[in-house]
Amino acid sequence: MNDVSARFQWWERPDLNYENGKLKFAGHAVSELVRRHGTPSFFYNASRVTANIKRLHQALEGAGFADRFRILYAMKANRFAPLLTYLKTSGLVGIDACSPNEVEHAISCGFRPEDISFTNTSLSREDLGRLTQWDGMSMNCDSIHAIQKWGELGQGRDIGIRINPAVGIGREGNDKLQYSGALTSKFGIYREQLADAMAMARRYQLRITKIHFHTGCGYLTPQLESWENIIRTCLWFVDQIETVETVNVGGGLGVPHVAGDAPLDLSRWAAILKEHFLARPVKIEIEPGDYIAKDAGILCLTVNAIEKKQNTMFVGVNAGFAIALEPAVYGLPFQPVPALLRQGRHQIVSIAGHINEALDIFYHDIELPPLQEDDCLVLINAGAYSSSMASNHCMRGQFKEFLLV
Amino acid sequence: MNDVSARFQWWERPDLNYENGKLKFAGHAVSELVRRHGTPSFFYNASRVTANIKRLHQALEGAGFADRFRILYAMKANRFAPLLTYLKTSGLVGIDACSPNEVEHAISCGFRPEDISFTNTSLSREDLGRLTQWDGMSMNCDSIHAIQKWGELGQGRDIGIRINPAVGIGREGNDKLQYSGALTSKFGIYREQLADAMAMARRYQLRITKIHFHTGCGYLTPQLESWENIIRTCLWFVDQIETVETVNVGGGLGVPHVAGDAPLDLSRWAAILKEHFLARPVKIEIEPGDYIAKDAGILCLTVNAIEKKQNTMFVGVNAGFAIALEPAVYGLPFQPVPALLRQGRHQIVSIAGHINEALDIFYHDIELPPLQEDDCLVLINAGAYSSSMASNHCMRGQFKEFLLV
Repeated sequence: MNDVSARFQWWERPDLNYENGKLKFAGHAVSELVRRHGTPSFFYNASRVTANIKRLHQALEGAGFADRFRILYAMKANRFAPLLTYLKTSGLVGIDACSPNEVEHAISCGFRPEDISFTNTSLSREDLGRLTQWDGMSMNCDSIHAIQKWGELGQGRDIGIRINPAVGIGREGNDKLQYSGALTSKFGIYREQLADAMAMARRYQLRITKIHFHTGCGYLTPQLESWENIIRTCLWFVDQIETVETVNVGGGLGVPHVAGDAPLDLSRWAAILKEHFLARPVKIEIEPGDYIAKDAGILCLTVNAIEKKQNTMFVGVNAGFAIALEPAVYGLPFQPVPALLRQGRHQIVSIAGHINEALDIFYHDIELPPLQEDDCLVLINAGAYSSSMASNHCMRGQFKEFLLV
Repeated sequence: MNDVSARFQWWERPDLNYENGKLKFAGHAVSELVRRHGTPSFFYNASRVTANIKRLHQALEGAGFADRFRILYAMKANRFAPLLTYLKTSGLVGIDACSPNEVEHAISCGFRPEDISFTNTSLSREDLGRLTQWDGMSMNCDSIHAIQKWGELGQGRDIGIRINPAVGIGREGNDKLQYSGALTSKFGIYREQLADAMAMARRYQLRITKIHFHTGCGYLTPQLESWENIIRTCLWFVDQIETVETVNVGGGLGVPHVAGDAPLDLSRWAAILKEHFLARPVKIEIEPGDYIAKDAGILCLTVNAIEKKQNTMFVGVNAGFAIALEPAVYGLPFQPVPALLRQGRHQIVSIAGHINEALDIFYHDIELPPLQEDDCLVLINAGAYSSSMASNHCMRGQFKEFLLV
């Protein structure tokens, strides 16, 4: 293996790159951030978050949607309060929330009820009671049952309905992230239920002004054809309800995870929306989480131990799937990146967490420059679905978070 | 489907059974517990915990180990403080801990350092520094690196070493719970490393008095043959080190999860230990977590919504994998049990959580008596690896816990 320290890495970009062998992130040397703040620490680059959102704005504006669209940040991806307030003050996004506590948290961070769109399944009486307090919040009912319960709490309101097109999409080769598809899912109202759903809405004079669907996570350019098929299927629902003013096409826009992934082609993505929606008198909503936050965050760890066992060189770090579970649970790898590039022979290593479970491996068999004990190792793409899903399993739930503005 | 409400269920036992159509647990009507305490709530039956431990004591005593054994409760299974203190006062178990915070927590609940055995991987300098404070605690080093670091912090101590026999075991058909085996794992010292490990111990005058191995989780009677093979493999390590006084054979003892599972045959299990260890001058340690706590706990939920989607009848409940993730992450189902048995036609239903993720299903397609909205539905086997692994994903991390003594 030759020296690749000068070689450009697939994940490098202006705000995350090597300069003279030092990893820079958001204008900081990562080694310096870590010296000051310790590990394990998540750092989020506010400018990257903004850039990700502006890219979406430009794509939708470029497709001619002008002010006929709204971007809702799926806060379940990362609810770090400073990040939410930063997003609010940017004025660029609203919020997609999926529990009453999320709504309250978004409001505590500065969002108004009008900024928030709510969608979830299996709501309790208490959930519904709390949700009905926030006048101006947009409510998507994901079952006939939810329409009924919402109607009982207040007639004559506007609602959205989450529909299920019975076709799904997800990251290639990954079946854990499909939200609709061959297997019947718990989400949304199926085609054969629509007439009953509309009747239930009429019973409580609820006006269905929005169709919502969310069919999977992590799609990239190769999946856009499937995504277009989903949209075609969903248009059937839109055409059944003449009061529809908004179509929420969900989230699921992915980011590259491994060297072979190309970034999602947003112009092609927007062209699909243009073809199917621009001529219709509807507004578009999207609900990205990953696309906004994931590549804006890094998780900085310390190398505790390096030891070869059989044919595997294990690099043990000071955190595990308790605070970053996508590799273990979803099969989504986190590219590991040394904060300081050492010269020397590269090696194939496996990055192991410190949780006492076999599945606690961050990356199997990846070529990296030399590492030593006490080195800082960075996991990229840690801005979404890491800290927000953290547990205290084995009492290893400790971490810090920092918004770099 | 006929009325099975009078039929004996596979999971029924004296402290968890139906009486006149009411589910009783630990002498309480579950409907009454829920009326008082609400849902989602975990209830743990202290007597069942004790019974599980005493069964292990009897099996080991029956095999002739007399006082030559120690049972260490794997606290990562459930660290609820009242449960830990109850275990301490019972005098029946020590503690298996895997992080410095776990050690401190066990001590805060009344355990002494001498009660605690520590095993983990990828320890940081800070971890090691904290661990070295607790004189009397038993330390198992799981790598040559750990032996070195431990030796640097204090020469001349007794240590255990975690070894890896390169053969594993687990619940049938489940590859997520193997800790050693075909794929090289991060755990333990492999056969070809042993000479180096012993040399490292000598360098710091560390006396290796214990061999530890843990090779998988959830084994039942059909896996005992594999387990015996593992023991045979591990005996090679024991025979290399003449200072060994204790062999810790790990945990992994499983409990039935579905109707077809029979309880682990403890007499056969103990007979295997007897055959291989009784004639040797060693003490035996075991580290069960699931076996002690899992079937002693139930999770009480409320049915929020029942709705048929395509061919699936979804029963939506007021919790999800944020607080009970074994079905979603490990493929281990939680048998759902209604707190009150309603008369009527049984149905095939799927139990769905309220988390906005497709994998949040507690059970796919199970025949249950009729359920209605607001009914209490109980998940059994929720005493281990549920609350201890809880996250606040989607801000749905709320639950209560109660020890029933």
